[in-house]
Amino acid sequence: MKIYRYPIKDSWKDLVKRPVLEQKEISGLITDIFAEVEKNGDKALREFNEKFDKADTQSISVTEEEIENAEKQISNELKQAIQQAKENISKFHASQKQEIQKVETVKGVVCWRENRAVEKVGIYIPGGTAPLFSTVLMLAVPANLAGCKEIVLCTPPDKNGNINPAILYAAKLCGVSKIFKTGGAQAVAAMTFGTETIPAVNKIFGPGNQFVVAAKEYAQRYGVAIDMPAGPSEVLVIADEQAVPDFCAADLLSQAEHGSDSQVVFISTDLKVFEETVKAIGQQIRDLPRNEFAAQALENSSFILINTLKEALEFSNLYAPEHLILAIADFEKYIPLIENAGSVFLGNYSCESAGDYASGTNHTLPTNGYAKNYSGVSLDSFVKKITFQQLSKEGLQNLGKTIELMAEAEGLFAHKNAVSIRLK
Amino acid sequence: MKIYRYPIKDSWKDLVKRPVLEQKEISGLITDIFAEVEKNGDKALREFNEKFDKADTQSISVTEEEIENAEKQISNELKQAIQQAKENISKFHASQKQEIQKVETVKGVVCWRENRAVEKVGIYIPGGTAPLFSTVLMLAVPANLAGCKEIVLCTPPDKNGNINPAILYAAKLCGVSKIFKTGGAQAVAAMTFGTETIPAVNKIFGPGNQFVVAAKEYAQRYGVAIDMPAGPSEVLVIADEQAVPDFCAADLLSQAEHGSDSQVVFISTDLKVFEETVKAIGQQIRDLPRNEFAAQALENSSFILINTLKEALEFSNLYAPEHLILAIADFEKYIPLIENAGSVFLGNYSCESAGDYASGTNHTLPTNGYAKNYSGVSLDSFVKKITFQQLSKEGLQNLGKTIELMAEAEGLFAHKNAVSIRLK
Repeated sequence: MKIYRYPIKDSWKDLVKRPVLEQKEISGLITDIFAEVEKNGDKALREFNEKFDKADTQSISVTEEEIENAEKQISNELKQAIQQAKENISKFHASQKQEIQKVETVKGVVCWRENRAVEKVGIYIPGGTAPLFSTVLMLAVPANLAGCKEIVLCTPPDKNGNINPAILYAAKLCGVSKIFKTGGAQAVAAMTFGTETIPAVNKIFGPGNQFVVAAKEYAQRYGVAIDMPAGPSEVLVIADEQAVPDFCAADLLSQAEHGSDSQVVFISTDLKVFEETVKAIGQQIRDLPRNEFAAQALENSSFILINTLKEALEFSNLYAPEHLILAIADFEKYIPLIENAGSVFLGNYSCESAGDYASGTNHTLPTNGYAKNYSGVSLDSFVKKITFQQLSKEGLQNLGKTIELMAEAEGLFAHKNAVSIRLK
Repeated sequence: MKIYRYPIKDSWKDLVKRPVLEQKEISGLITDIFAEVEKNGDKALREFNEKFDKADTQSISVTEEEIENAEKQISNELKQAIQQAKENISKFHASQKQEIQKVETVKGVVCWRENRAVEKVGIYIPGGTAPLFSTVLMLAVPANLAGCKEIVLCTPPDKNGNINPAILYAAKLCGVSKIFKTGGAQAVAAMTFGTETIPAVNKIFGPGNQFVVAAKEYAQRYGVAIDMPAGPSEVLVIADEQAVPDFCAADLLSQAEHGSDSQVVFISTDLKVFEETVKAIGQQIRDLPRNEFAAQALENSSFILINTLKEALEFSNLYAPEHLILAIADFEKYIPLIENAGSVFLGNYSCESAGDYASGTNHTLPTNGYAKNYSGVSLDSFVKKITFQQLSKEGLQNLGKTIELMAEAEGLFAHKNAVSIRLK
């Protein structure tokens, strides 16, 4: 835990720096895996399952039977929870639909945009220490709402060749069309090239380890789009004198437990809240099953005392956090000051885990400072917006001279002629 | 010109293939240029101006005086044309603004999105054979509407160290904050790192040659975002029996004159229109100043006779053209069949040059098949959409159990605890 008391502004640019990630040289490995999957398809995937996941998978397709069995394995309570989360995520993402709005820019010239779903999308769900079925909801729900025709999900099998039942249940519930047992860079390669069983997709979504991140970046060379560049998860909490230290500590820890590379920043204008939050962390961390991760993440975390909330927001904008919690009384007053953030949580009862699971907002968000230039995943991420224009003869007459003059000034006479020939 | 009469569907996937671009090994050169600009800043830029553009530029900043002089150099007629284009582009892009829409997903849980401008954006405008001041409008107008605080423009100087006056005039008119005389990969590097005079930006827009394209791709390693991946410009024209062959020919040529790598596809269901369009191209091309480019582009172009308009649309969706012209009577009936396209032009009077300059739609569009997974530039390209959520105590009570169950099932107990501690 690094503690900074009223740091001068000149030092801020160092404080907002993320630790440079250890960039292991894995590009050769990624190239090899892509080549292998492109050449040998499913056979390569089965071999990688054995090699990397120690799993013997005769078939990489998940069967209807496996999905039915999964449904039996999870409690009704959890099912209801997943259903409620799905409902809220649907409601919020459905509200992002835009009506077609036709604009007559000049008499006889009508322009508008129409949405079309990205036809085929791929969702990657990591295996590893936590079965992230919540990410299935966050990606499959908007994909389905957008009208994507094919929603493919890839996730690594466990040693027995199985997928976590909650992942299967959520996938089925949210309209995923096909589920496959394959993980890592090879899953990304499979969705890029397609194999005998896995369809090639137009856009790949979802989190993953450094191999998955590198593979998604590499996949773009083959014309595939990706959701956004990735980095470790982050939270920045701003607390004033009315914040509850126990709540702040719990939020900071819920970020820290993600992994040892998680980023946690705490800023307070109040010395008492500051000190008590630090103390509360020490108490709460003891009982956490994942406290080793949390302790490692906290080592790199920054705890900052600052003079004013305005300065706190200024610091936050410079850092551009994935998650921003405003544990302050007058949060409405400070919303207009927020420039860069992925998702914002307002007041003492808006904990980050609400947005991680069930409030309705998306949890696939820009990290690593990308909140300065990227939005989180939304309905927009699953559609293209096509522009249309319809000019009547009168419309072209009204606009013709303008187009001819500009085309001529750019030296593009065929562009000019396309107008002139119509107005002759 | 490659002519295909009623090609069988099995052959389509070959017909929609773009020619593989000659990928010269330029990555070493890009790395060197970036290193040089990062190290030596403006000095490096001045040297590159001399080396690549044969221009002696004492200062790389364009002065107020130069802008005033530019204004005097262009005709009132052209100024009015640029102003009308600006007005239409403003009107259409302003219509893309979205009101904040708050959604109560569960009682006490309110979610919404707010737009924030990308703070600093960079616009690259190529030099070369045509002074693309229209692209200044297409990028600076929405940047300005979005509220970007810094709009930087880089473009290479001519041999006398000057910038085309129409570019300067358009930049001034559309609220560009700073204009610099630097081109190629070095301009992209300058906007990535910043120099003594050029500010580092968050997102870089604009077309360019293979060096600029490679540099924009490379810039992303440093956290900069870009508008979209790039390829040569394209048009696909679909014509039925009521299309006017002279108009079709003019549209195809206006695409072909862009450069020898331009992509032109013509599809007709009518033999007479088909043959007369081919003939009209032969006649119209003679008088074009850029007919060498056009002739080269036409060599690789496809002219396809097809049985039905439905098939024509099917082919078009597979090709995913940057520009799609529907020179057909019943275009309204066929709009719902369009799945993949950048911008669509409807009927006999909607020529592509209308959208290139002045109808109001953006001309920065996805090429090379990227219309399958990318949208063209719009107001959205200049903002981030930040999600907000505000939970009251009651809201968290309503949602708490769901969050706790899901967090526990994912093995994330600190996430669960952030709820439990608040509801205790």
